[in-house]
Amino acid sequence: MQDDTMVMEKSSFKKAPREPRNGVDTPTLLATINAVAGQPELAKFQFRAKSRWIAGTHSSSTMANFFGAGAEQSHMMAYQADSDHPAVLCGADNGPTPVEYLLHALASCLTAGIANIAAVRGVTLHEVESTVEGDIDLRGILGISNEVRNGYQGIRMSFKIKGDAPAEKLEEIVMQSRARSAVFDVLTNGVPVSVAVKG
Amino acid sequence: MQDDTMVMEKSSFKKAPREPRNGVDTPTLLATINAVAGQPELAKFQFRAKSRWIAGTHSSSTMANFFGAGAEQSHMMAYQADSDHPAVLCGADNGPTPVEYLLHALASCLTAGIANIAAVRGVTLHEVESTVEGDIDLRGILGISNEVRNGYQGIRMSFKIKGDAPAEKLEEIVMQSRARSAVFDVLTNGVPVSVAVKG
Repeated sequence: MQDDTMVMEKSSFKKAPREPRNGVDTPTLLATINAVAGQPELAKFQFRAKSRWIAGTHSSSTMANFFGAGAEQSHMMAYQADSDHPAVLCGADNGPTPVEYLLHALASCLTAGIANIAAVRGVTLHEVESTVEGDIDLRGILGISNEVRNGYQGIRMSFKIKGDAPAEKLEEIVMQSRARSAVFDVLTNGVPVSVAVKG
Repeated sequence: MQDDTMVMEKSSFKKAPREPRNGVDTPTLLATINAVAGQPELAKFQFRAKSRWIAGTHSSSTMANFFGAGAEQSHMMAYQADSDHPAVLCGADNGPTPVEYLLHALASCLTAGIANIAAVRGVTLHEVESTVEGDIDLRGILGISNEVRNGYQGIRMSFKIKGDAPAEKLEEIVMQSRARSAVFDVLTNGVPVSVAVKG
């Protein structure tokens, strides 16, 4: 979920027309941006997950509905994601760990942005692959040290990208996606999170 | 991935013995914590995701291997997660959005910690459910406003928890899980993220 500011005329927020490309319906994407620019309340979204404990460290979340564009919306189906801890951390390994989903969220957010931005810039992509690595010292979460943070100490992401444009232009597209990535923003800048328990 | 510091004797990091509970192999969990306390290099983990663009805003990540406990480790299988943008955002809705996976990561991290901590405290759980909501103004990622952040403006989480303990004790378990959650730490405090493009 990112887009490109570069082709925007600041006075009107009108984007230049572009043909569909990279599997992106570029005309509709540009029309959507123009519509939201003219009616900012359409930009207010709320995403949701409902999670259920199964056993041990295994849980499952459902992501079915969200609010956006002024109305309740439904995904095509109620998507599920399972998490567990691996055997080496005394889990049953019924799914990726919670922290691996953070890496997937980052990769998928930047990759979606790259496809959109390339389409808006008229660049046809052939391949986008990335690897994401996160380093974590478990003495934090295991309660062994109060000087070690609970979460990742650093995340490194590396892209391989091929398309009909010079390497510099492809790299600019990656960096523009980073500049407009919701997940990159949350992971690097943090967000207020409240946790409540209901009776 | 969280655990309980409360029963820890600071001098030795030895935990009191506990029977298996909540699907948690409590003796092995406590032995693991004691082993890591005595050999801190075992606590160094690296998690990884490999992502591949499919079409439009659709991509798929594989989470197969990680490093930890002093050696390369493999999940029981190569786990996959797909993401896409929904139709209302010009995607094909082939999976949850990247930002919904952040909510799942948060819920699953705290839920796993709750099960572990309850087991260590001798509390049998019957039910743990949670809902997570994140508010986002898409004028950021759509490039319409530079004053609106790209990511969530706030995340709210609400737990429903039932078990063989008074409500206050169950709430203390939730809050201890929050205090030792890797995902809660990353989302609230942020983490350095580097993005590179390889030729």
